[in-house]
Amino acid sequence: MAKARKSPVMFERVAFIGIGLIGASMALAMKREGLAGSIIACARKATTRKTALKLKIVDEATADYAKAVKGADLVVIATPISTNGPIAKAIKPHLKQGAIVTDVGSVKQEVIAAVAPHIPKGVYFVPGHPLAGTEHSGPEAGFAELFEGRWAVLTPLPRTPAKVANKIATMWKRMGAKVDTMKPSHHDRVLAITSHLPHLCAYTVVGTATDLAGDLKQEVIKYSASGFRDFTRVAASDPVMWRDIFLSNREAVLDILQRFTEDLAGVQKAIRRGDGAALEELFTRTRAIRRGIIDAKQA
Amino acid sequence: MAKARKSPVMFERVAFIGIGLIGASMALAMKREGLAGSIIACARKATTRKTALKLKIVDEATADYAKAVKGADLVVIATPISTNGPIAKAIKPHLKQGAIVTDVGSVKQEVIAAVAPHIPKGVYFVPGHPLAGTEHSGPEAGFAELFEGRWAVLTPLPRTPAKVANKIATMWKRMGAKVDTMKPSHHDRVLAITSHLPHLCAYTVVGTATDLAGDLKQEVIKYSASGFRDFTRVAASDPVMWRDIFLSNREAVLDILQRFTEDLAGVQKAIRRGDGAALEELFTRTRAIRRGIIDAKQA
Repeated sequence: MAKARKSPVMFERVAFIGIGLIGASMALAMKREGLAGSIIACARKATTRKTALKLKIVDEATADYAKAVKGADLVVIATPISTNGPIAKAIKPHLKQGAIVTDVGSVKQEVIAAVAPHIPKGVYFVPGHPLAGTEHSGPEAGFAELFEGRWAVLTPLPRTPAKVANKIATMWKRMGAKVDTMKPSHHDRVLAITSHLPHLCAYTVVGTATDLAGDLKQEVIKYSASGFRDFTRVAASDPVMWRDIFLSNREAVLDILQRFTEDLAGVQKAIRRGDGAALEELFTRTRAIRRGIIDAKQA
Repeated sequence: MAKARKSPVMFERVAFIGIGLIGASMALAMKREGLAGSIIACARKATTRKTALKLKIVDEATADYAKAVKGADLVVIATPISTNGPIAKAIKPHLKQGAIVTDVGSVKQEVIAAVAPHIPKGVYFVPGHPLAGTEHSGPEAGFAELFEGRWAVLTPLPRTPAKVANKIATMWKRMGAKVDTMKPSHHDRVLAITSHLPHLCAYTVVGTATDLAGDLKQEVIKYSASGFRDFTRVAASDPVMWRDIFLSNREAVLDILQRFTEDLAGVQKAIRRGDGAALEELFTRTRAIRRGIIDAKQA
């Protein structure tokens, strides 16, 4: 807070509905960059509000939606996806004219379907999704640098004025992110592959291990460094958030899961038959993708 | 090399058959700790021998098995598993009486079955497996610290004298590793879960992505940071090495893969049916395993 503001405030008053890892990181980045005049968080749990205040992540905290969004120029919905619709309905009567509502959900079509109908005339909705996170959750897990060099994807509605979408884009850039815009359906398909499928595999592999007999389970933990460990990190992500992601991106997730299952059956068959050439061909092909990621400076 | 030797040499002459990531890292750790009087590497490719010499990983390099193992007190087989049997057969007539042969393969039962019959009387075989590695390969990827704090698992044969197994255990400890001993069959089962299954999933997920249409594939690379990236790192591991691992640990891998497939079908069903409670229960269970790994200081 001792740092001088880099440029004029973008939003006089910002309200976060939900102040977990993402909300708290945004609030901290906004403070660092001087983007917000004041920040209020709305959280159900008293301990969350207490932590957010104690760590100076926000200036005010409340459990009351009306109080939170009253007079806010920007409202950020940063809660598990299944709550987004009910929240939009609850805040609707209290939104200030000219306010912008945005979200950070990992699925866009279903969030738009749930939230957009509750956005009043004269208020703007810019659906967004920062591709950033850690396996930790809660306001204490937040940090201002979370979005540094990461993508923030916006999926503006056809009726969203360009000026409004640009303002949210600028906000993300000032928090260190790179901004991209795409159609909601395309976003959901890309994320099903790059994020939802890997998480699903990690959760399932770790789940399979938890079903093992006690001794063997202890050894899995002991020798986890041989590959399993990376999966447990991914599979330690917030359970409610991920439950909602899979349920609300059902179609795209089931489609990519179907392809994966077919491919896995192929690999299984190759192992059973001792088809080394098929395995080596696959493993060589996957190495090339890694090279692409390194070349794209995403490694 | 300027560093003073910490204690007496353990082996006057060490021969590495294969000098990739693991062999090179061992050679460098041995040099750092002063464990070896001299080190020779046997490698098929001229470029490998050149690199190993240029980087001062070894003192000598040859393509000739006989020359490599002649007079060696310790012979380390560090090549893909499928080559271990033929190598054991080729070096057999040239092994020095009293020499110790060890290996670093990720599967133990099949390596023992392939190598042990070729070990002459008066020579000792101590099967071993350091649970360490990176996605890089070749001698240039080696570094002396690779084994620091990692497990080295030994699966000595019933006829291996305790004194000999202990010497290999001491060698690993001096290279920074923690040492554990287990039955070959048990090793293969534990590794199928902690290492082979995660690698198989990662290879398959990345493989599924490589089959996508060009545009979508480019986006998968662009947005890889959302989970996919971790999988590509795992799936960039050496193709031939991993081909051999899956083929030689076929039974244990197919068993755990079967369980995984059943669990995955359960998750798929939960998503299809919108069973949020089942998903949340699984995701909460997997988080607890992560906690176990953190408590065991393996995170």
